[in-house]
Amino acid sequence: MIHLYNTLSKKKEPFEPLHPPFVGMYVCGPTVYDDPHLGHAKSYVSFDVIVRFLRASGYKVRYVQNITDVGHLLGDTDEGEDRIIKKARLEKLEPMEIAQKYEVRYFNDMDLLNNMRPDISCRASGYIPEMTGLVQSLLDKGFAYQAGGNVYFDISKFGDYGKLSGRKVVDLLEGVRVDVAEGKRHAADFALWKKADPDHIMQWPSPWGQGYPGWHLECSVMSMKYLGESIDIHGGGLDNQFPHHECEIAQSEAATGKPFVRYWLHNNMVTIDGQKMSKSLGNFKSLPDLFGAYGPMTVRFFILQGHYRSPQDFSDQALEAARKGFLRLSQIVQDIGKPVDASASPVTEPGPVWKAHRERFFAFMEDDFNTAGAISVLFDMARDAQKCMQDAAAEDLVHAGRLFDELGSSILGLKFEPAAGQADTETENALVVLLLELRRKFRQEKDWASSDAIRDRLLEIGIAIEDGKDKTTWRKVTG
Amino acid sequence: MIHLYNTLSKKKEPFEPLHPPFVGMYVCGPTVYDDPHLGHAKSYVSFDVIVRFLRASGYKVRYVQNITDVGHLLGDTDEGEDRIIKKARLEKLEPMEIAQKYEVRYFNDMDLLNNMRPDISCRASGYIPEMTGLVQSLLDKGFAYQAGGNVYFDISKFGDYGKLSGRKVVDLLEGVRVDVAEGKRHAADFALWKKADPDHIMQWPSPWGQGYPGWHLECSVMSMKYLGESIDIHGGGLDNQFPHHECEIAQSEAATGKPFVRYWLHNNMVTIDGQKMSKSLGNFKSLPDLFGAYGPMTVRFFILQGHYRSPQDFSDQALEAARKGFLRLSQIVQDIGKPVDASASPVTEPGPVWKAHRERFFAFMEDDFNTAGAISVLFDMARDAQKCMQDAAAEDLVHAGRLFDELGSSILGLKFEPAAGQADTETENALVVLLLELRRKFRQEKDWASSDAIRDRLLEIGIAIEDGKDKTTWRKVTG
Repeated sequence: MIHLYNTLSKKKEPFEPLHPPFVGMYVCGPTVYDDPHLGHAKSYVSFDVIVRFLRASGYKVRYVQNITDVGHLLGDTDEGEDRIIKKARLEKLEPMEIAQKYEVRYFNDMDLLNNMRPDISCRASGYIPEMTGLVQSLLDKGFAYQAGGNVYFDISKFGDYGKLSGRKVVDLLEGVRVDVAEGKRHAADFALWKKADPDHIMQWPSPWGQGYPGWHLECSVMSMKYLGESIDIHGGGLDNQFPHHECEIAQSEAATGKPFVRYWLHNNMVTIDGQKMSKSLGNFKSLPDLFGAYGPMTVRFFILQGHYRSPQDFSDQALEAARKGFLRLSQIVQDIGKPVDASASPVTEPGPVWKAHRERFFAFMEDDFNTAGAISVLFDMARDAQKCMQDAAAEDLVHAGRLFDELGSSILGLKFEPAAGQADTETENALVVLLLELRRKFRQEKDWASSDAIRDRLLEIGIAIEDGKDKTTWRKVTG
Repeated sequence: MIHLYNTLSKKKEPFEPLHPPFVGMYVCGPTVYDDPHLGHAKSYVSFDVIVRFLRASGYKVRYVQNITDVGHLLGDTDEGEDRIIKKARLEKLEPMEIAQKYEVRYFNDMDLLNNMRPDISCRASGYIPEMTGLVQSLLDKGFAYQAGGNVYFDISKFGDYGKLSGRKVVDLLEGVRVDVAEGKRHAADFALWKKADPDHIMQWPSPWGQGYPGWHLECSVMSMKYLGESIDIHGGGLDNQFPHHECEIAQSEAATGKPFVRYWLHNNMVTIDGQKMSKSLGNFKSLPDLFGAYGPMTVRFFILQGHYRSPQDFSDQALEAARKGFLRLSQIVQDIGKPVDASASPVTEPGPVWKAHRERFFAFMEDDFNTAGAISVLFDMARDAQKCMQDAAAEDLVHAGRLFDELGSSILGLKFEPAAGQADTETENALVVLLLELRRKFRQEKDWASSDAIRDRLLEIGIAIEDGKDKTTWRKVTG
């Protein structure tokens, strides 16, 4: 039984989907106006592993993620310029060219992190009729009002407003009225539909005139369209808990009269050397830069070494440590694969050692997706696998290999490679084997100079060799 | 000056965009309900090279391609089941999951073919308000009529109907009235909006009740939204000339009163061993299968060896021949790159030989994108480059390398690789260099046995070496 921390109830709860084995899961996707950064990696790796684990536990998950290509204003408020339109102005492109360009980059980086694609990736701009439909329904039911071509949600009409973030409607209503748009009844009311100036570059017709949707609207509409009025899991970053997710709840539940989301899951933020990551502080880590320095699998491994609900501090030392740890693990998984034929069906059932590892792994993951604990099990497995190699316990190694496949590759989504993020080729392997044979020949002839020269040249090329009792092993090292 | 064959005028015309240097180009994209096949490769490689060449000629192209995820009915007619809904029923998935799955596969295969992504890739389902807007405008102007919840375009009202495909309205109007939907005035009238049964799985509200758009509507709406009411180039497969493109012209020009498209470009079809490719004939070539057998670059090269307006016959022999030709060309490009430092700036201007090759290449491409002629120039360049290698003409080789980069890689989009579809690595290179050094040492010591052993082992690994006068060269060979 999986237990997960529900931000709505603020406690760990047993996971009981509405219609098992089906699970509807919605995760807030990116606003596509810039390169993805470390914060995106943290969020989408976390939810990717959650989807993978739910599937491994027998659930049939429909995973929906949106692409925000309209309506997300600077500062996340109801005022300011649309983020994509601003970028379009700077790059002198049509807004949809900006959205297209950065959507492609987003998925490219997510693919490199080995995140599975969502089952449905939906663009906000593609759901205008559904959004105006929801706005109309809120107007009809008295939860919204028109003012100067805009439509606002009246938070005073929805008693539950604040239940996710813990804010009290009464406090919000009494808040200082700063920068309140014309005609807004309360400062905390939020825009469902915004009037567009004639020269606004993205706009659509609506019963309230030409305009564009408020940012919060899209997630309610798209999640309910594909997952029903009550969905099992809604994920997103902690920074979106308020106002974004609070507003989603208000507009959805006011419209349907039903609970919108059973389990709210929020991933925590990343910091850089203890500071908030931001462009103005000059410590912004875009994924293309980060991948260039460490490779995407090291970034994934680093993220999984933390807990999705914990803040995670990024530093070069921490990434370097993650790189080494992952390399060590990868090397052992490679070594397991080499001596035995992993496709051979072992006669025996997995022994108690492997069964115990698998149980501990699942126990960690069932406890609110404790990936850090799960990774510690992989290291324990590696230690036991090394013992089996020393004892040449071939069948045990087949079981070990299969368990790394299931737990490490399928569930945690790790790609074990000789060098993190660097593809090996069969030709490379064959060439190294040939060089090691030549070196052995030199050693037999006591031509130590030639033997050492090969070792040194290989190290320059990035291949470290180690002479063991019976055989010489090698592994790739990175700069 | 580029000349292109305009299907509308049925002759080659000089290319004069409306607002040079800007070019608006729209190409009909795939209906995403199955794996891409050889026909898709032919179409999208052809138009990719056209975009690349226009850009190389100084034009600023905005390249729009749609994704059909709604409304494309079986048989391309107004009746029958929606292709995506049918597939969703078979695979027991939500229609948007089908569209998502095959859109991802489509772009994956296009990426492997090294087609550039369109600047805007737009999904039909995302433009319902724009589509109902166009339908309303056609109703207002008397070009369309309602019948039983459907809206049809009345071809008798649009005198130019048939101007692209050469069909005569009077013939179409007198056509046998077979399977005419209830309320349709003429059999050849086409649906702009279709009424949806209550259980139809994809439907939207409209002024004419719940329904979904006719297939043709999306391309008019999305091309005009992003490229204006008159666009420079509209591309697509010859099989879409009628009715799809004919209907696009009718509904667009009736609504705007302006010419819809200046240049219509149609790529011809592929046949398999002389027969139409079809699933029922069992000769269907999906791209994943084809790439497995030949590698995507061979498929690209094969397509470019034909002309986009000519039918192209696929056979294993033809693909095998293309593979060998491309391998030979790639090997020479590799060889050019190795002996000299291609980044070194040569003192001289390119000699007349290279200037002449470049001019011939451009002349072929400016003549309706004659890629077959352009490839023949690459082979001529390869022949001259080989002479330069024999003469050790280093500067000429730099010019040759740069010209292959410009013409072969940038314009034709070919990725020259040692073995088609097989990636080399720097590590591999370094390992081979080390082995050749050891072999040289053995030869100096007259240890012919060891020297020959290295040569033989390398050949087993797939690396052939050749001892020249001054140096030993090597290349990868495939089984």
